[in-house]
Amino acid sequence: MLCEKLIRIGFQLTENEIFSPAPVMVKLLKERKLRPMLLVHPRALPQFEGIDQSNPNCVVVGDATDVFTYEKLNDAFRLLMEQKRASLFSLGRGRYYKEVDGLCMDVGGFTAALEYASGVHAEVVGKPEKTFFATALSDMALSKSEVLMIGDDIVSDVGGAQEFGIRGVLVRTGKFIAEKDENHPLVKPDAIVDDLAQGVDVIISQRMD
Amino acid sequence: MLCEKLIRIGFQLTENEIFSPAPVMVKLLKERKLRPMLLVHPRALPQFEGIDQSNPNCVVVGDATDVFTYEKLNDAFRLLMEQKRASLFSLGRGRYYKEVDGLCMDVGGFTAALEYASGVHAEVVGKPEKTFFATALSDMALSKSEVLMIGDDIVSDVGGAQEFGIRGVLVRTGKFIAEKDENHPLVKPDAIVDDLAQGVDVIISQRMD
Repeated sequence: MLCEKLIRIGFQLTENEIFSPAPVMVKLLKERKLRPMLLVHPRALPQFEGIDQSNPNCVVVGDATDVFTYEKLNDAFRLLMEQKRASLFSLGRGRYYKEVDGLCMDVGGFTAALEYASGVHAEVVGKPEKTFFATALSDMALSKSEVLMIGDDIVSDVGGAQEFGIRGVLVRTGKFIAEKDENHPLVKPDAIVDDLAQGVDVIISQRMD
Repeated sequence: MLCEKLIRIGFQLTENEIFSPAPVMVKLLKERKLRPMLLVHPRALPQFEGIDQSNPNCVVVGDATDVFTYEKLNDAFRLLMEQKRASLFSLGRGRYYKEVDGLCMDVGGFTAALEYASGVHAEVVGKPEKTFFATALSDMALSKSEVLMIGDDIVSDVGGAQEFGIRGVLVRTGKFIAEKDENHPLVKPDAIVDDLAQGVDVIISQRMD
């Protein structure tokens, strides 16, 4: 979300500098020769082009918004119940994100719904999973000490980064909610900054390296 | 579900012998002076007539099937996020039930989705909560030893009953799945019967009292 906004406001960022879960998911589907039932946002569909989706044997859930109808969720649930070895993949564990008109339920809740109903535990491809951070660092050819994570999600961004072993900085923009996030019971950010610009200033002035 | 089917096939059961969560929920809403946002099945709506639903300050979730759109779930999520003391009520914790065309996701998964996204823990009004079994027994003026529970849900019916302190019998009809339910890791039924008729035979012949 942050990356998309940066591009929208003219920030110098090219598409191949954005690291999103969908391409990692596509790679994994190819490696394991899986045919997915996709519950993803329509804008993510082109990334799955060329992947056989007939006679599906796994479910992939993303931040699908209006695609999450009872019928679609139930189709996914039935697939998980009927095929003994069907896998459930989730493109992240986010609780919510922020749009112009307010907070919106993210993929995490819908993954929780399918897990609860089917009894199948989801394999997460995305934040806060360590393997996702590892793939991003490998893609950029950078070591843990050369990187820090700045994000507005206290658990998936900051907590996920710290679990992986890189510093996590919380930003007071986006979906940030002061009372919930500044005193989170489990995650203590390495720093909290007012916005991305201040984050960059802090890095330059303090040489967090 | 079972009760409705019994009535449909002509079993001698009157409506006031059915004990469902909605009337208990209505009583609770009146007692606590709460105005609900209802995510319940259209057939349950008449039971909430007369309850003020304007400017809601709590969410009530049932087995709402097609009512579960992203928009409706997100409205409920936003209410829980925006009002600090907004409560979440769930009319049960069922994982799934069986319809003619197959298994269907029950209320439990959608409650899990809202709990995960909002961080608000649901208060359950229905099975497997002890208070629900207690209210049913009180309504029938029967003691625990005079009652046993026969159901096709190993967790909500059998497990819930046993937790409350009454015997729980699993029936091999409805949504029963042999491999999952007969060797459940946590719940061991007091008896397993092929159908309701056999359950009644067993009770009469063995005088389980």
